[in-house]
Amino acid sequence: MADLIARRRALLGPNVSTFYDDPVHIVRGEDVWMWDAEGRRYLDCYNNVPHVGHCNPRVVQAICRQAATLNTHTRYLHEGILDYVERLTATYDDPLKTAILTCTGSEANDIALRMAEAMTGKRGIIATDATYHGNTTLVSHLSKSNVPEVGFGLGQYVRHVEAPDSYRIPDPDGQRFAAKVQASIDDLDRDGIGFAALIVCPLFLNEGFPAQAEGWLRPAAEAVRRAGGLLICDEVQAGFGRCGSHFWGHQKQGVVPDIVTMGKPMGNGHPVAGLVTRPEIMARFRGSFRYFNTFGGNPVSCAAATAVLEELQEKDLQANAARIGRLAQERLSDLALRYEVIGDVRQSGMVFGAEFVLDRDSKAPAAAYADRAVNRMRQRGIILSKLGRHKNTLKIRPPMPFGEDHLDLLMTTLDAVLAETPVTA
Amino acid sequence: MADLIARRRALLGPNVSTFYDDPVHIVRGEDVWMWDAEGRRYLDCYNNVPHVGHCNPRVVQAICRQAATLNTHTRYLHEGILDYVERLTATYDDPLKTAILTCTGSEANDIALRMAEAMTGKRGIIATDATYHGNTTLVSHLSKSNVPEVGFGLGQYVRHVEAPDSYRIPDPDGQRFAAKVQASIDDLDRDGIGFAALIVCPLFLNEGFPAQAEGWLRPAAEAVRRAGGLLICDEVQAGFGRCGSHFWGHQKQGVVPDIVTMGKPMGNGHPVAGLVTRPEIMARFRGSFRYFNTFGGNPVSCAAATAVLEELQEKDLQANAARIGRLAQERLSDLALRYEVIGDVRQSGMVFGAEFVLDRDSKAPAAAYADRAVNRMRQRGIILSKLGRHKNTLKIRPPMPFGEDHLDLLMTTLDAVLAETPVTA
Repeated sequence: MADLIARRRALLGPNVSTFYDDPVHIVRGEDVWMWDAEGRRYLDCYNNVPHVGHCNPRVVQAICRQAATLNTHTRYLHEGILDYVERLTATYDDPLKTAILTCTGSEANDIALRMAEAMTGKRGIIATDATYHGNTTLVSHLSKSNVPEVGFGLGQYVRHVEAPDSYRIPDPDGQRFAAKVQASIDDLDRDGIGFAALIVCPLFLNEGFPAQAEGWLRPAAEAVRRAGGLLICDEVQAGFGRCGSHFWGHQKQGVVPDIVTMGKPMGNGHPVAGLVTRPEIMARFRGSFRYFNTFGGNPVSCAAATAVLEELQEKDLQANAARIGRLAQERLSDLALRYEVIGDVRQSGMVFGAEFVLDRDSKAPAAAYADRAVNRMRQRGIILSKLGRHKNTLKIRPPMPFGEDHLDLLMTTLDAVLAETPVTA
Repeated sequence: MADLIARRRALLGPNVSTFYDDPVHIVRGEDVWMWDAEGRRYLDCYNNVPHVGHCNPRVVQAICRQAATLNTHTRYLHEGILDYVERLTATYDDPLKTAILTCTGSEANDIALRMAEAMTGKRGIIATDATYHGNTTLVSHLSKSNVPEVGFGLGQYVRHVEAPDSYRIPDPDGQRFAAKVQASIDDLDRDGIGFAALIVCPLFLNEGFPAQAEGWLRPAAEAVRRAGGLLICDEVQAGFGRCGSHFWGHQKQGVVPDIVTMGKPMGNGHPVAGLVTRPEIMARFRGSFRYFNTFGGNPVSCAAATAVLEELQEKDLQANAARIGRLAQERLSDLALRYEVIGDVRQSGMVFGAEFVLDRDSKAPAAAYADRAVNRMRQRGIILSKLGRHKNTLKIRPPMPFGEDHLDLLMTTLDAVLAETPVTA
């Protein structure tokens, strides 16, 4: 282990973070399980990339079959990308009917921001102050926690709005958030930059998946449209049925975005990502840029992505996400009756968690406690993490086949960890 | 075919170009061959992505085996990325010993430019006026032919130098090119932007792979170092043994770059790419940015990339590239004795071609002729393209297992096409 960490530092450089104080060395995965080099089994309550389960046989078979048949770029005609985009766009509301396929969600968001500039002639982008949308030079500026010292001056075009926080800052109908967005639009106008787009994860997953009524995002979307800007929904985490009630997070939010970007779960780990948009936005972009992505939409990527859609449908995994999300909410609420440290319980289908606080009255975030709990869960064989505005919320976001037995093991273990972990700042 | 093109336009948008006036509909690939939907076979003299051959069994098997075992991100420890980076950096000269793995060459170049800014505190980037380095918002500005109308104003940081052209503009020792680079450095200083990096394909493949003596790039590299900037070599096309004489193009050019980026051939079509650099540059970047790439360096990508290195080594494909390149030069030179339209013949190992001219004295480029020849070759079952400063040079860049029989079929067919194609503007 020490040897691996030393090699890693020498070969990959410093500050390449691992999860956990005591990193795991995973060598095998299957369904919702992972195994380390010593044969120890872990329940995966964290990874959304293996969306339909680690090493899902349908996806693996699709990759193998296509990789052995043909893998080339999209400057030759191929049915793979067309069949996939047809199937994908069928899950979207009406004007969202054209797509670009890329390899990463970062690439998709990088395109989306250029589309917004091409459509509006403006450069001002609004994101929340607790989000992450990717790693290109342009997109990395959307992360407030990660504003680089350098980055070709692109930070000037970004304004951060306060992330929603249903536990501390009531905003039942989204009007408060819309007002914050409007203030940032005004700010961009005042600075002569102008407003191009609001980009959000429709379920605000990095922000801590706040509890929001259906349609909560509508007022913000209206402010965006009034100002002539675009609404970009980043479904890299939220999409592909995870929220349970809808296939896409934005559908739950009652809005039809101008652009939707996708990534991580799309190919179950195979590097495929992309965006869908309205035909007129696509035409404007295609007229302004000669965009080509060598690996984007290749036959193997499309085979993997098609298998993911098939698996979701045939196993009805969206319904599973809804059911498990409800059960998780109940189990976490039960724990909250016994553990004062749980200040709030939230879920959005197959994303759920508890917010830890030092004191329920002050709601002071217990971030260090969350750290300890996450590391103790790992010691007990449960893989999860933490997130949120205050970095004090359990991030439980398992692969979609996560079932009741898995939930039971997770909650029983969490109970034991909460019992043994003293609440201190 | 018409149906496929219509679906493509509806689903992917306008201006998504295909190769050839009469696009090919490829459904299968094997070694240096591709087949269309009607069972017609094509000799692939163009694709560098299937570097060790379409559907190379070793690579396919590596992908299948690893995809069925584990595919996750690099925040868990895994030997795959470490073993691969060790093997990869062993092919590099000494200080280039740390790596970041990404999914696309565009992502790698996007990082390289940020590294240059982080190291120099400056933003000025120099590229040639006939190059392409990728598709992110920042990187797309390096293509002069593709300077977007929009793009967050990043064009201000780029200066284009005249691409080398060994046929028309003699520059035997690279001094002329170095002087052009120096003039751009001075220009960036004068404009208050300052100089951060020169980024080039070390063999200038998009520019038309000019004939250059070994060590030709040294004077330009010296100008870059004198000015305190970084030399970035983009080996996305040139690398992995293609030039025959060396494993990396920059080695042929007698320089050790500060950063080397890689892409297309690295995983034989699997989306894997990356860069190598000196430890102090990596440390500066890792200190300035919290870069993480979800799919980058995942176990399947590393398995595919490792299989490519193994295949190159065990089949000695670099030596094959050197041998075929020399034979191709001879065959093309023979054709030049009989066809006046061939103004120049050039090769750089497994990249070779002929430059077409309307007149050998004026050297007026015959770009339309090149178009016709490329399309007629396609009709005769030979897949190739054209490129270069004047878009009049055959681009012949086959998979590395391309052998003598394949070369013979290519040259015999080219002879027939040249014989039947009238030379007109």
